[in-house]
Amino acid sequence: MKFCPNCAAILTIKIPADDSRERHVCEACGSIHYQNPRNVVGSIPVYGDQVLLCRRAIEPRHGYWTLPAGFMELGESTSHGAARETLEEAGAVVRVGPLYSLLNVPHAEQVHMFYLATMAYPEFSAGEESLEVALFHEHEIPWGELAFPTVKQTLEWFFADRAAGVLSGEFHVRSRDVLPSERI
Amino acid sequence: MKFCPNCAAILTIKIPADDSRERHVCEACGSIHYQNPRNVVGSIPVYGDQVLLCRRAIEPRHGYWTLPAGFMELGESTSHGAARETLEEAGAVVRVGPLYSLLNVPHAEQVHMFYLATMAYPEFSAGEESLEVALFHEHEIPWGELAFPTVKQTLEWFFADRAAGVLSGEFHVRSRDVLPSERI
Ligand SMILES: [Zn+2]
Ligand SMILES: [Zn+2]
Repeated sequence: MKFCPNCAAILTIKIPADDSRERHVCEACGSIHYQNPRNVVGSIPVYGDQVLLCRRAIEPRHGYWTLPAGFMELGESTSHGAARETLEEAGAVVRVGPLYSLLNVPHAEQVHMFYLATMAYPEFSAGEESLEVALFHEHEIPWGELAFPTVKQTLEWFFADRAAGVLSGEFHVRSRDVLPSERI
Repeated sequence: MKFCPNCAAILTIKIPADDSRERHVCEACGSIHYQNPRNVVGSIPVYGDQVLLCRRAIEPRHGYWTLPAGFMELGESTSHGAARETLEEAGAVVRVGPLYSLLNVPHAEQVHMFYLATMAYPEFSAGEESLEVALFHEHEIPWGELAFPTVKQTLEWFFADRAAGVLSGEFHVRSRDVLPSERI
């Protein structure tokens, strides 16, 4: 960010009055341009004892498997975004349940949130951002070909919680921070 | 957003290839400038059976009471942001517990998240953005002078859950969308 989106003047990086952090400040029009983390919202689409995954047709991690998820858009809620991404990427209509995991990825300036979701029918199809979409039993999950640490962690928590029988009751959101060094 | 933050050219609003929504696109340098909701992170600071609130020294809602909360910054996690805001606005060091509420405010392009938090000592002080800070028993909460619907809803959930004895066990995140028409 070099130029003011409001007036095209060159921006200054400085700490505004009444602030404690450096911001992109426009001396010409007086505006301050804050930057904030973005939310990635997705679902864990469950059909019976299977989970729906998408193989990515786009970078990053082209060809790797992911839970359906994407950037939250203006004007929608986190759960609506999760349902929308599931429909767009996996062609699946889901009933969205409770928030299941919240993973902070500070080095990517992102927060990832996954909702439990159920599919009434095994109907799905690859959207434009997916090469293929498929249902997996736990023993079929392509653990070595998952796209992101947040997807791997969410699936690990999910299968452990399912085995422990806690998903049908109350539970805290599963949450942790992802480190820059984490690789699949 | 009128000018490209990268090259200062005038932006075009159009639907990029492989997208389904209008974006701010720069025809000069090819960059696409996405806009996404921002997270507001805060805490419910609990000392014994009291909750800590701040009276706002800034707009919007100058003079009204709020839970300590503010915009999540780049490079931090949601829980770190909640602890930071609690220290900055209320001068209180808290131990942050589980995520308690997640409220979508689509018309404000915001997601509000509040963490349960405990204070080891009744030590607090008004930060620059607060006129005063005080501990409240449930019957003392200034319900008619709260700053935001998300704060009111979170406090209502909190006291109901505390009365029901569920806060010490597992619980789903309390979550709903706030409507544009909602007023305190
Ligand atoms: Zn400007
Ligand atoms: Zn440009």
